[in-house]
Amino acid sequence: MTSAYEELIATTKETSTLRSAMSVLGWDQRTKMPPGGVEQRSNQLALLAKLTHERATDPRIGELLAQCEADKDLTADPHSDSAANIRELRRAYDRATKLPSDHVEENARTHAIAEHHWEEARAKKDFSLFEPWLEKNIGLARTTAGFYGWESDEEPWDALAEGYERGMRARQVDSVFVPLRDRLQALVSDLSSARKPSTSIHDITLPTDAQMSFVTKISEAIGFDFSRGRIDTTVHPFCSGFHPGDVRITTRFSDNKFFDSLAATMHETGHGIYEQGLLPAYNGTPLGRAVSLGIHESQSRMWENFVGRSRAFWTWCQPLVANDLGITASADDIYAGMNLVDPSFIRVEADEATYNLHIMVRFELERALMNGDLGAADVPHEWNRRYKEYLGVDVPDDALGCLQDVHWSGGSFGYFPTYTLGNIYAAQIFEKIREDIGDVDAQFERGDFGPLKGWLNENLHRHGGRYIPSELCERLTGKPLSADALLRHLEGKLRPLYGL
Amino acid sequence: MTSAYEELIATTKETSTLRSAMSVLGWDQRTKMPPGGVEQRSNQLALLAKLTHERATDPRIGELLAQCEADKDLTADPHSDSAANIRELRRAYDRATKLPSDHVEENARTHAIAEHHWEEARAKKDFSLFEPWLEKNIGLARTTAGFYGWESDEEPWDALAEGYERGMRARQVDSVFVPLRDRLQALVSDLSSARKPSTSIHDITLPTDAQMSFVTKISEAIGFDFSRGRIDTTVHPFCSGFHPGDVRITTRFSDNKFFDSLAATMHETGHGIYEQGLLPAYNGTPLGRAVSLGIHESQSRMWENFVGRSRAFWTWCQPLVANDLGITASADDIYAGMNLVDPSFIRVEADEATYNLHIMVRFELERALMNGDLGAADVPHEWNRRYKEYLGVDVPDDALGCLQDVHWSGGSFGYFPTYTLGNIYAAQIFEKIREDIGDVDAQFERGDFGPLKGWLNENLHRHGGRYIPSELCERLTGKPLSADALLRHLEGKLRPLYGL
Repeated sequence: MTSAYEELIATTKETSTLRSAMSVLGWDQRTKMPPGGVEQRSNQLALLAKLTHERATDPRIGELLAQCEADKDLTADPHSDSAANIRELRRAYDRATKLPSDHVEENARTHAIAEHHWEEARAKKDFSLFEPWLEKNIGLARTTAGFYGWESDEEPWDALAEGYERGMRARQVDSVFVPLRDRLQALVSDLSSARKPSTSIHDITLPTDAQMSFVTKISEAIGFDFSRGRIDTTVHPFCSGFHPGDVRITTRFSDNKFFDSLAATMHETGHGIYEQGLLPAYNGTPLGRAVSLGIHESQSRMWENFVGRSRAFWTWCQPLVANDLGITASADDIYAGMNLVDPSFIRVEADEATYNLHIMVRFELERALMNGDLGAADVPHEWNRRYKEYLGVDVPDDALGCLQDVHWSGGSFGYFPTYTLGNIYAAQIFEKIREDIGDVDAQFERGDFGPLKGWLNENLHRHGGRYIPSELCERLTGKPLSADALLRHLEGKLRPLYGL
Repeated sequence: MTSAYEELIATTKETSTLRSAMSVLGWDQRTKMPPGGVEQRSNQLALLAKLTHERATDPRIGELLAQCEADKDLTADPHSDSAANIRELRRAYDRATKLPSDHVEENARTHAIAEHHWEEARAKKDFSLFEPWLEKNIGLARTTAGFYGWESDEEPWDALAEGYERGMRARQVDSVFVPLRDRLQALVSDLSSARKPSTSIHDITLPTDAQMSFVTKISEAIGFDFSRGRIDTTVHPFCSGFHPGDVRITTRFSDNKFFDSLAATMHETGHGIYEQGLLPAYNGTPLGRAVSLGIHESQSRMWENFVGRSRAFWTWCQPLVANDLGITASADDIYAGMNLVDPSFIRVEADEATYNLHIMVRFELERALMNGDLGAADVPHEWNRRYKEYLGVDVPDDALGCLQDVHWSGGSFGYFPTYTLGNIYAAQIFEKIREDIGDVDAQFERGDFGPLKGWLNENLHRHGGRYIPSELCERLTGKPLSADALLRHLEGKLRPLYGL
């Protein structure tokens, strides 16, 4: 006889398998699919979205959950496998049952087409090609928020963000972001009046093949397992894990931006190491999934910034770039070049400090779009106005402005703040790792990234969704989330580099 | 109100969409997936196979078919859209309902794993690694044949072959193959005692990148539309069409076998042009699908052999290989080199004449395997014995012998003869095309492949599955299928080349 819990897990795994098939289709769409495939791909994704939604909202799941919740043996220990799975599946079921299946299908179809138009608009620097599709996406997202609902002290954005970072609210984000913005602006202002470290690493031109070969080598050296993953190129780098045994990362190249590509690759490698570190035995259940986007981003940011922009890393890596790519810059020059603070237009190329200001622009806009205070047509103007105010830059065209990110074209509103939350989590966790694993700098200097990866595997990755993000943060670091560690990290690195 | 026919077509299209998603997963498995992905991929394919089988065998389809068949307006004209769709959907439904869904699922899972072991066995030249999986595949195929059933004058192989080439029976194949074998062996024997044309085109070493770039250019020049398709590399080249707007072909390279790679690419391009020539409006229904594997193969063989091994083609192409690749051979030398008759081990590298003898070996073995007269363990010996007898060659190892083809590892028994049927159809159709489109040789000499592609698009591709293969052959050529045109073609080309 199959217990209610066994049946619940079996049906959950089957639906997850279907979702992982959708992920493969999504990966192919972004990396390999020819233009002529767009219509059929959107049909495939819409159909699979409908099927997975039907399964995820099957009333039988509600019955099984009620039976499981009533069974003390399953739920007595709140962090047991069964209790954690039941808790997360209840949350997912409650959210999924609020969305009608035709709405889910319309979302999937519209987003696939909108993303295609976004690509064209971006290539042609013509926002008007994307505007009607952005408007459709905004309307669909607000409808989605309406289906989820929100409390009287909440707002539509909160209903969507809950899907990315459990428990996060616009008000809280704002309460962390506003003071962070003040201190960052002060730091950036101090740096801009200081002596800029001299560096020429951004003027190096290298063929794409050589860059790909090198970033692949570094990805492997820091811990990505290529027998369980691969790397490709896309307009907007991403990571997609179908299973711990099959994790796909992407990156992008320009002839003369090698160090940006390396940073982007280490970023996606961090996501990939997290996905590869989930436990295969739990695959298809909440315990086998990354806990949240913010925690996911903490992993990418840790490898990109706390490893890839450290002096110790470049002590090890400089001889490699010299030997493999003929780059003559010293480790100090590269370290300085990787840490220049230079307010600019493009989020994914932004420095570690101003990056968070890019996020704040997007957060404010999407909050207003979801509240109905702005429409799609307002986006370019409002975007450019904030870039001038926060970063002091004049956005020259929409491809370098509001068309730069894929997220809204895919209907993801409420997602952006998880990037800065990731920076905050990463700083706080890395301070704890420094206490735990001995001389991190000495390890990096000799190219030994095993202790760091091992700590993350053991303390974070293998737990999957066992703990909710705020709880996980406290368990890992002994403290609630705070931007203090991030500011300590940035000020402690940047002020000395600029001679302050 | 939705009519029975409309409902039938809508549900058919939805199931086809699901199948096309499976095709994407299959393509990814062969071209891009890392080794660690095999388990999850087999779970995904097994689940989707189960879902599509459930849909294809839904009793509601039987009800709808019965209603449609009773409606004279739909079926009066046997070649109308509705009559052809109803006829083909009836056939598919009857075949699908004979297979239990757990058997379908077991097939999909086992084949995915068996293919992985085949790849390993082939790489290590060790048949024993594949033997248990081949035995499993044989057992599953015989069980499948049992579910389909066969008449008293038929045999298990027939039940499987029906899925690839409607109406084809082992007895008929044998009755075409035995005399074809006699005349081919006589031709090959005559050629082997004649003066071999001197040529050195098979000693040229070229980097893979340059080869890929060139074969892609030729694929495009002869008619493959890269805005609706792409090309990649695999161990065993194939073509997979998800939709006329998204057709994927693959090829393979060795440093010193450029002309083989070009031929393989033109072969898959022929398949791809057929898939791109199906009508998008019919996508997801029998009218939007290739009619059979034999007819499909006629398209690949036509572009590979009737175009790519013709003197006229090389009059056009020789200056291109000279310019792009630095190949100094004359058009005559290349023409001779592409048409050398040289009995060898590898089917996909075989010359146009002996190729058919490779197929006969496989046909005889799989017929015996399905009858239970042979088991997996007998395959290497029986394979090698026939290669000695028919082709006069000693197979040095199983990687060059019975491990060379992917088909049996994927559970495809009854498939191989469609290759030689394709050669026969191609020759017969090409004789008609020569009558219809003017001076074909002059067209090829100036690189104009539009008239040939146009004829095929208009007379063959756009019909999809409207006519059954034997009917289509008669409509296209005015004659029933016969090996005479193929023998005229081979003897007319090869005897003069060898000075006979």
